[in-house]
Amino acid sequence: MPDPFASTDDTRTASPLPHAKAAVFDGPIRLELGGELPMVRCAYETWGTLNEDASNAVLVCHAISGDSHVARHAPDDAPGWWDRLIGPGKFVDTDRFFVVCPNVLGGCRGTTGPSDIAPNREPDAHPYGAEFPRITIGDMVSIQRLLAKELGIEKWRAIVGGSLGGHQALTWVSRYPESVECCVAIATSPRLTAQALAFDVIGRNAIQTDPAFADGQYYDKPNRPDTGLAIARMLGHVTYLSSEAMEQKFDPDRHDPREIVSSFEQRFSVGSYLAHQGEKFTTRFDANSYVTLSMAMDLFDLGANRLALMETFDESVCDFLIVSFSSDWLFTPGQSRDIVDALTALDKRVTYAEITSNAGHDSFLMDQCIDQYGPLVQAKLGRIDAEEPKINTAEELILELIPDSASVLDLGCGSGRLLSALKRHGKDRVVGVEVAQEKILAAAARGLDVIDYDLNHGLSAFIDKQFDVVVLSATLQAVANVEALFDEMLRVGKRVIVSFANFAYRELREDYVERGRSPRAPGVFDYDWYNTPNRRFPSIADVEDLCRVKKVTIHHSVFIETDTRKLIDPNNDPNLNADTAILVLSRD
Amino acid sequence: MPDPFASTDDTRTASPLPHAKAAVFDGPIRLELGGELPMVRCAYETWGTLNEDASNAVLVCHAISGDSHVARHAPDDAPGWWDRLIGPGKFVDTDRFFVVCPNVLGGCRGTTGPSDIAPNREPDAHPYGAEFPRITIGDMVSIQRLLAKELGIEKWRAIVGGSLGGHQALTWVSRYPESVECCVAIATSPRLTAQALAFDVIGRNAIQTDPAFADGQYYDKPNRPDTGLAIARMLGHVTYLSSEAMEQKFDPDRHDPREIVSSFEQRFSVGSYLAHQGEKFTTRFDANSYVTLSMAMDLFDLGANRLALMETFDESVCDFLIVSFSSDWLFTPGQSRDIVDALTALDKRVTYAEITSNAGHDSFLMDQCIDQYGPLVQAKLGRIDAEEPKINTAEELILELIPDSASVLDLGCGSGRLLSALKRHGKDRVVGVEVAQEKILAAAARGLDVIDYDLNHGLSAFIDKQFDVVVLSATLQAVANVEALFDEMLRVGKRVIVSFANFAYRELREDYVERGRSPRAPGVFDYDWYNTPNRRFPSIADVEDLCRVKKVTIHHSVFIETDTRKLIDPNNDPNLNADTAILVLSRD
Repeated sequence: MPDPFASTDDTRTASPLPHAKAAVFDGPIRLELGGELPMVRCAYETWGTLNEDASNAVLVCHAISGDSHVARHAPDDAPGWWDRLIGPGKFVDTDRFFVVCPNVLGGCRGTTGPSDIAPNREPDAHPYGAEFPRITIGDMVSIQRLLAKELGIEKWRAIVGGSLGGHQALTWVSRYPESVECCVAIATSPRLTAQALAFDVIGRNAIQTDPAFADGQYYDKPNRPDTGLAIARMLGHVTYLSSEAMEQKFDPDRHDPREIVSSFEQRFSVGSYLAHQGEKFTTRFDANSYVTLSMAMDLFDLGANRLALMETFDESVCDFLIVSFSSDWLFTPGQSRDIVDALTALDKRVTYAEITSNAGHDSFLMDQCIDQYGPLVQAKLGRIDAEEPKINTAEELILELIPDSASVLDLGCGSGRLLSALKRHGKDRVVGVEVAQEKILAAAARGLDVIDYDLNHGLSAFIDKQFDVVVLSATLQAVANVEALFDEMLRVGKRVIVSFANFAYRELREDYVERGRSPRAPGVFDYDWYNTPNRRFPSIADVEDLCRVKKVTIHHSVFIETDTRKLIDPNNDPNLNADTAILVLSRD
Repeated sequence: MPDPFASTDDTRTASPLPHAKAAVFDGPIRLELGGELPMVRCAYETWGTLNEDASNAVLVCHAISGDSHVARHAPDDAPGWWDRLIGPGKFVDTDRFFVVCPNVLGGCRGTTGPSDIAPNREPDAHPYGAEFPRITIGDMVSIQRLLAKELGIEKWRAIVGGSLGGHQALTWVSRYPESVECCVAIATSPRLTAQALAFDVIGRNAIQTDPAFADGQYYDKPNRPDTGLAIARMLGHVTYLSSEAMEQKFDPDRHDPREIVSSFEQRFSVGSYLAHQGEKFTTRFDANSYVTLSMAMDLFDLGANRLALMETFDESVCDFLIVSFSSDWLFTPGQSRDIVDALTALDKRVTYAEITSNAGHDSFLMDQCIDQYGPLVQAKLGRIDAEEPKINTAEELILELIPDSASVLDLGCGSGRLLSALKRHGKDRVVGVEVAQEKILAAAARGLDVIDYDLNHGLSAFIDKQFDVVVLSATLQAVANVEALFDEMLRVGKRVIVSFANFAYRELREDYVERGRSPRAPGVFDYDWYNTPNRRFPSIADVEDLCRVKKVTIHHSVFIETDTRKLIDPNNDPNLNADTAILVLSRD
């Protein structure tokens, strides 16, 4: 077999990585924007073993400057760029899964790209350079699809990608929905913001106006557009970090630049850092590849609004895990949420967590962040380490009120106590919504579909009558806009179950009357007036009044004294005698 | 008199503006970083008339790419860059004030800069170019000081500046405290963030690595470093806009670039816009000036932390107005707050407003924003259009409790009702804190010192025992962390006055007992349980309990029934009979 990397003539770029294998696909390979390639070589690495029915394959997609070396192959191997996530016994366990990571089309780490000699052009053979056809994320995915076929993989157990890798994962799902069981898209977006586009445009301008760029045919020239490429990389670097992270990194020695040899300004420590990063990049990356890949990213567009995104994902049948980072201003949490909102409205299975991190876009590659989202990836892949939680009296009663086959949305689901119980009881479609990150991560690590969502912003992600039952259990006390939330719950759920502590319960009334103090309820209300996180203190009568005012039907009421687990008869003044009420409501 | 602009040899840059006058200062002018200039020409424009005692002069300082033309001189004149703010009858009223706006040292719009022929070098005369000495914001201010002397101005009634202009205004105050009565610093900072530094470094790298830069001596060459300068300007432009503003501006026609002739990429509408802005800039600005001014800005540093900033402003005696914009990520609201916190701790007179705007750093030049902060500038200059507000019963009683000469901090001051009354009653040092923007602007337009501040973040800006009296009037109900705020109030005030509605008031108790509903108090509590913005509902006994727990001394209590304006005797169960209490507290 001829060496598939043989056509690479450049030692600086396109050098094969030590563990890379290559698949060669004869063409013509037609490209999305009209061009074609006579052949494509795809460099890739693999870990683990494909099982007999080829059901354990995981595709990992890399970011703009990444490559196929996502994890080490042996303990003494060079670490991969996602080594913390992937490996034997790790979150993506290579003892269980067959992991495949290809270099992208247009890149310069083994897969066909602009620095390759264009075949079929002898005797005038020269690298593609800027003649390399314009490609899209869709074209990258097409090549990955050919690779899958070659490896005997019809369906990926999961596709995992961050940043530009996430764009590839999402494109797979939208184009080949039957080929993906689980899509993990991290620190990514449905398209670029105008601001992110602007930075890319400026970076490409720096490369293309560098006199050494020579219209992209610099490979046989003494100089390369290293200055332009370095400037583009410096700019990229700033967008990968948050302002806060830069402050922490560069302020302590603001005026003491690192000692480096550079033609770039080194006055400030951030200046010498960027100069170093920029110059280092030119030794391992090809300018034409950078232009090609960044243009593919800029053209990537799954839809500008929810309707368009709903069309994009309409046919998808996979389980989604979407993760964003609070300080990522390149691919913002809001953009991940746009994807999640579309999936939610389509009633797809999706878990979404926005992880608090000050490391910016780079968070997705950092160990402490991987340790937070890793268990979520692991759970989506079927391994759950967390213990099953126990439910309380009120939750037991709620469980009894929910019909067997009902789909359920639990608002303020915490770490998923009620959701887990619903799943144990055979409910197939249960979704939780929570705003506290710790609880979201705990629920998601249990394999529950939980969405990072602030109830105070309404339930706009959900469509009318999407769930048989919407539950608001022991959460009412923390809701700022109760009226709007009632409207929203009644819009989204065919039935709504609200459980809440009764502030006119005998013991609490006595606080005001006998002690002249504001009441101090047990359980979720176990706080003093001055330190409670709660802000709403209604009685049963108050909530019933609100239902009357808002023309909401109360179908059923359960009143309890939780301490004694005693049900209070509706005729025995529950507003005085019950400490907790559960109401079943609807709009009709 | 010889033409002071005669030494300018360049028609593209350094061309005198139509209304610019020039002052020439013979040197050697020694510079802060050790260099010197044999002479400096300062171009400036003026509006209005200097009065007899030279007490009505206002200095306006421009931003990095600005010039002396801040306002039009006649109705048919070209508009200035701050035309909405400055002019006859405007917020800075040129019928009342003598306004002076000089071009900065190192610039290219009339004042001495790198494109000027270096004097005293005949016969080998050539422009300074990159040999122009490194300058600082302090050097710019020194030249402005020479100009002030020349114009017969010893003390500025005010110095007003935005962005780099704000840096100049703050430098004036820190170096020549006796020369400034009022400092208006808008969209500015005490230094650059590492992120802002990074963008400047990248911009300068683009200029300095442009082969046409020729080490700064390009003036007699056929080409100029227009490519590098354009890329630096494109980058600057992105930092002047917010991501949201860019989305609104460029997304509707994302793929339809403007039709421009450009050597830069025009694929996306944002690309063609930036190309146009970048190229336009090269026709009016000199690359060496850009390098010189951006480096001066990068070296600007009034202090990295509050202690350093306190030293910087220790000697200042002026009145401060600091304004920031919510979406400004170049000079962030947090950076303005750093200045404000230092001034606050020094007990300087300061008003601070963070204006909600999605236009980013550019907000400071936009009409709708100027209309918001303009009245604040006007008030600081002594003209107040707003009516005096009336105070209510509880506020009258608070007023009586405050000694004549006391300094007062009013937490949650609203639009300044109590503060205005305190000023009317002769209190000299009264400061308000408020978080609602509309109220801050209203209070500041009344000429009150009010600071945009969220009480839930503590009072860390204030020092121990800074005020004789700290007032928390009808605000307790909205405070999330009551305990921390009590600690903070008692730290900052020698005495603390807290007024609050009593939730154990007879009528409210009856709500629970007789109606079984959560109480609905009048006044600030005039809401239903489900829509109140309030979150704390204590009784008088509750607050007294808290004082006991926290070992706070209650020196004096006033209990009232506000409807009847009746005082309730302390022995007549005020916890039942008073709807409002006023407590005077201290830690000793």
